[in-house]
Amino acid sequence: MKRILFFYTILLVGCQQRSNETYEKSENLHHPAKKVVLNGLNHPWSIAFLSEEQALISEKDGNLLKVNLQSKEKSIVKGFPKDLTDSIRAYSLGDNSGIFEVLIDPAFKENQWVYFSYAAKRKGEGRTTKVVRAKLENDSLHNHQTLLVAEPFAREYFHFGGGMVFGPDGKLYVTIGERLFWERDNPPIPHAQDISDKRGKIYRINSDGSVPEDNPDFGPDGVPGVYALGIRAAQGIAVEPKTGNIWFSEHGTIQGDEVNLLSAGANYGWPNVTSGKLRSSDYTPPKLDGVTFTPPVWFWPHTVAPTGLTFYTGDDFPAWRDNLIVPGLSRGSLWRFRIENDTIKSAEELFIDDRVRIRKARQSPSGKFYILTDEDDGKLIQIIPNNDTNSYKK
Amino acid sequence: MKRILFFYTILLVGCQQRSNETYEKSENLHHPAKKVVLNGLNHPWSIAFLSEEQALISEKDGNLLKVNLQSKEKSIVKGFPKDLTDSIRAYSLGDNSGIFEVLIDPAFKENQWVYFSYAAKRKGEGRTTKVVRAKLENDSLHNHQTLLVAEPFAREYFHFGGGMVFGPDGKLYVTIGERLFWERDNPPIPHAQDISDKRGKIYRINSDGSVPEDNPDFGPDGVPGVYALGIRAAQGIAVEPKTGNIWFSEHGTIQGDEVNLLSAGANYGWPNVTSGKLRSSDYTPPKLDGVTFTPPVWFWPHTVAPTGLTFYTGDDFPAWRDNLIVPGLSRGSLWRFRIENDTIKSAEELFIDDRVRIRKARQSPSGKFYILTDEDDGKLIQIIPNNDTNSYKK
Repeated sequence: MKRILFFYTILLVGCQQRSNETYEKSENLHHPAKKVVLNGLNHPWSIAFLSEEQALISEKDGNLLKVNLQSKEKSIVKGFPKDLTDSIRAYSLGDNSGIFEVLIDPAFKENQWVYFSYAAKRKGEGRTTKVVRAKLENDSLHNHQTLLVAEPFAREYFHFGGGMVFGPDGKLYVTIGERLFWERDNPPIPHAQDISDKRGKIYRINSDGSVPEDNPDFGPDGVPGVYALGIRAAQGIAVEPKTGNIWFSEHGTIQGDEVNLLSAGANYGWPNVTSGKLRSSDYTPPKLDGVTFTPPVWFWPHTVAPTGLTFYTGDDFPAWRDNLIVPGLSRGSLWRFRIENDTIKSAEELFIDDRVRIRKARQSPSGKFYILTDEDDGKLIQIIPNNDTNSYKK
Repeated sequence: MKRILFFYTILLVGCQQRSNETYEKSENLHHPAKKVVLNGLNHPWSIAFLSEEQALISEKDGNLLKVNLQSKEKSIVKGFPKDLTDSIRAYSLGDNSGIFEVLIDPAFKENQWVYFSYAAKRKGEGRTTKVVRAKLENDSLHNHQTLLVAEPFAREYFHFGGGMVFGPDGKLYVTIGERLFWERDNPPIPHAQDISDKRGKIYRINSDGSVPEDNPDFGPDGVPGVYALGIRAAQGIAVEPKTGNIWFSEHGTIQGDEVNLLSAGANYGWPNVTSGKLRSSDYTPPKLDGVTFTPPVWFWPHTVAPTGLTFYTGDDFPAWRDNLIVPGLSRGSLWRFRIENDTIKSAEELFIDDRVRIRKARQSPSGKFYILTDEDDGKLIQIIPNNDTNSYKK
């Protein structure tokens, strides 16, 4: 009632156009709709905006693309490393291999560095996650530098990780999965708990691949660059703009899908503790003395397969401001979390009647909000306020 | 950015005070906070507002009270039926017996009718749900009329139902549970599926207890007043103001908690179909030929114990307008659903870090939003916009 009074008051003082705009914005706060911007993408994994119109899109089962959101043009970026694993389509249902994250350098305009992660192969040994940077000139990559190789190369084709983000400290944070499907395939000290094993960790490296001096100290056996351990299959990783906190998603087994807050030196517990269940009912993790496990901030009691999360800071949905948006693969979910400090206050599942496997949520430089769908005919979809709703018009 | 520009534009044209108000409202759309209005309630079940200040509160394990929200005064309403079951505290953990719903007549100011449901006892036979109306004069009930007795009286002390609401048609809708804890205790035709059994049904009756002529026809064996069947333990029932649709909550077993849309003559399936699991692993429901079951609109993959739901039409949370609010007992949940027609578009769980068993959500006549907590020291809590947040103040 007050709102309506206000609305008419404004009309009287001559602010008609802008007051209408505000009125409509309030009206649509919770009425998001989808607008397909691009289709025909081959299981897109990530997007890095070069501008509002131009972006790089990594296709898990395809190529690194340069796209124009206006003209809809797509071109394959030349010069992608040749050791991209060619087994992508060797299994009828596909596997976790492919191209993963793509990022541009915070100073891209000056230095043209593009960062990407992918499943690399080595003949006779198998594959693993590799992080490379190269300079983008027009549609071609040059001056390649390998920043991280999560050895050993191995035959398992799951849980590569490959999520990356630049922290507020300018360092590159990288998630590397533990590669196993069954926990029983672990050695006596599980990959993710073995500080001398590169798998199942989160890394913090300089943008040239060197190790920052202020990284946590895991002792003489610690793999260089490790920042946290006990990771199963983290993919999404994002900086909370308001606080500089880094959050990451973690795939559980049947349950155990989690959202975690990254902390230097923390051990997130896999496979010794999990908010879900182990796949291998016959597996008992080893007793690890003197180890403190960091619990997730959030876990779901059902499977979501949370992945490329992000924080919302746009103008289209004021009520979402600073909220964590978590897309999910397995239920086709899009979740919105309101966070205060390190506490989740509320959790909303969006598009319940319009589910589609989502790999990544991202904002354009101006704050437009996009998702990438994990499909054979994958799509870049903008989430826009829906102006067709009638809920206030009565 | 547009919003901020707008804000300053308004300041310039002299609408300072009201524009501030709007700004703050937008700011707080998703920052609900709790304000305890009354405490010391003995597992309150429902509330019926006589005005903004005065209300009737039914305590499941106590009395029917008249309360003043300003002065905090409480008085016991005299003349409550003597057959209220006295076994409330006979079990160490309590049971489902007690006083349930309380409603006032849509024309209460003219006729003073108050409607209430409760677990009534009959010596040597047990107990069941009873619906009574009586005239409220000051703090006393008079002219009692029994509207519904869900016979038989029986020893089971679960799933009384007792939820009530007046429909847009002026009829009284009442939920009656099927009373069993284990499905295997059902006769060959389960209570809830037996149209000649009063249990496990939703009723539609006139306010004097008579049966409307336009009720669905369940044949000569049908219990008078039955409107729908296949109900396990429905408690919450509410009218959607925008559409006149009636929605009700249903307690499942371990999973299977549901939100349903009420439809004349519909069979909601219990125990033959459920979105959860049966408690009795050795129980096989009978095959029922020619029966169509109506699925829930929503079910949770985990236990919520959804109960006294309502629709939000207040002004404090514009983004919640016309949303369905569902409180839960077992996880201390408060859920908000955005509905379009009969489709749930999004689902938000609120107060994740501040859980408390909630029995009922209700609005005052002016649209203030309240919840009742199911505790020994039960509380009436108003949900208010939180003005302390900083999320837009940057």
